[in-house]
Amino acid sequence: MKKTVITVSREYGSGGRLIARKLADELGIGFYDGELLSLVAKESGYTEEFVRRNDQKKTQSLLYHLYIGSQILPASDMIFIAQSRVIKDLYSKESCVIVGRCADYVLRDCPDVINVFITAPLESRIVRVRDEYGEIAEPADNYKAYLNKKDKNRIAYYNYFADDAWGKVQTYDISVNSDIGIDKSADLIARYIRARVGE
Amino acid sequence: MKKTVITVSREYGSGGRLIARKLADELGIGFYDGELLSLVAKESGYTEEFVRRNDQKKTQSLLYHLYIGSQILPASDMIFIAQSRVIKDLYSKESCVIVGRCADYVLRDCPDVINVFITAPLESRIVRVRDEYGEIAEPADNYKAYLNKKDKNRIAYYNYFADDAWGKVQTYDISVNSDIGIDKSADLIARYIRARVGE
Repeated sequence: MKKTVITVSREYGSGGRLIARKLADELGIGFYDGELLSLVAKESGYTEEFVRRNDQKKTQSLLYHLYIGSQILPASDMIFIAQSRVIKDLYSKESCVIVGRCADYVLRDCPDVINVFITAPLESRIVRVRDEYGEIAEPADNYKAYLNKKDKNRIAYYNYFADDAWGKVQTYDISVNSDIGIDKSADLIARYIRARVGE
Repeated sequence: MKKTVITVSREYGSGGRLIARKLADELGIGFYDGELLSLVAKESGYTEEFVRRNDQKKTQSLLYHLYIGSQILPASDMIFIAQSRVIKDLYSKESCVIVGRCADYVLRDCPDVINVFITAPLESRIVRVRDEYGEIAEPADNYKAYLNKKDKNRIAYYNYFADDAWGKVQTYDISVNSDIGIDKSADLIARYIRARVGE
């Protein structure tokens, strides 16, 4: 396949990560999600544990940092910068699938990038998070509030770092509601990608 | 196929209408775009020519109507109401593809509705509008401004009547950047729909 980087954004509990991995397998290319963090640690000089703890967290407000008199950028900003460098480095080297981390935004001016978004109705996401991932909702048993909060964090992270609105349909080359299943979603997206790269 | 209504929203010049027609042909179900207007005329009592002239136009502001002392709803509101009734009537009767007209919003609480969105990069849309549709841009030759205005009108229409933000990726079951071509886009969407209705 012609060198192509595929970014996958998703709603929490949509199965987007599973679909992304399946897609990478199907296309025979690299897959970066948690894998990215070791590279980021190497790039930033932070420990992997520290990077993991601050992963995809929005920074405290600038006001807070002025208040505490900080002279340096907050850790999550530093990590975001290192992460962007790692993503651009991957882009220059190999075909791969990158999950989350504003990769669509980081690579917004690069050709040969295909942006994917995975959605799913709230009810399906609740079932997946509760029954498949085995997550326990806080507040207890209120999975709607739990997912709502997870979504909000993801959106805040994107809007903070990407300086653009999250989830605009025009940003993505293909979006799929995963209610057709993980395998079929991955198949469909692979088919789209092959059509785009002319195979 | 199990009774299913497919709504198709699109960016101007993305080829969404062509894809929608192809999709309807491929699935062997009805197609409603301009066809809807005759039904709306019948429902509203307006002439078809009048309906066509006011089609997908946002109404003047309420302030304007207060200013001119109007006692009745503006024509475009009346047409929207008649149109919504026609869309719900179609929904209750048959499987079909409906293009635009906030059909995704009108049917938002109905099961067995699949919402599709067609996007395309600005450059591709300019080429299609200029070379395939043969449209002449006003201001002269500024196709970017021309498409920008067309998009704005479409968004304003949706946001006015649908009381929701246009183009949120979560609203759609599948979105496709039509740069893979009209036929391949229609094929891909048909494949998604068959997977959803369990065929």
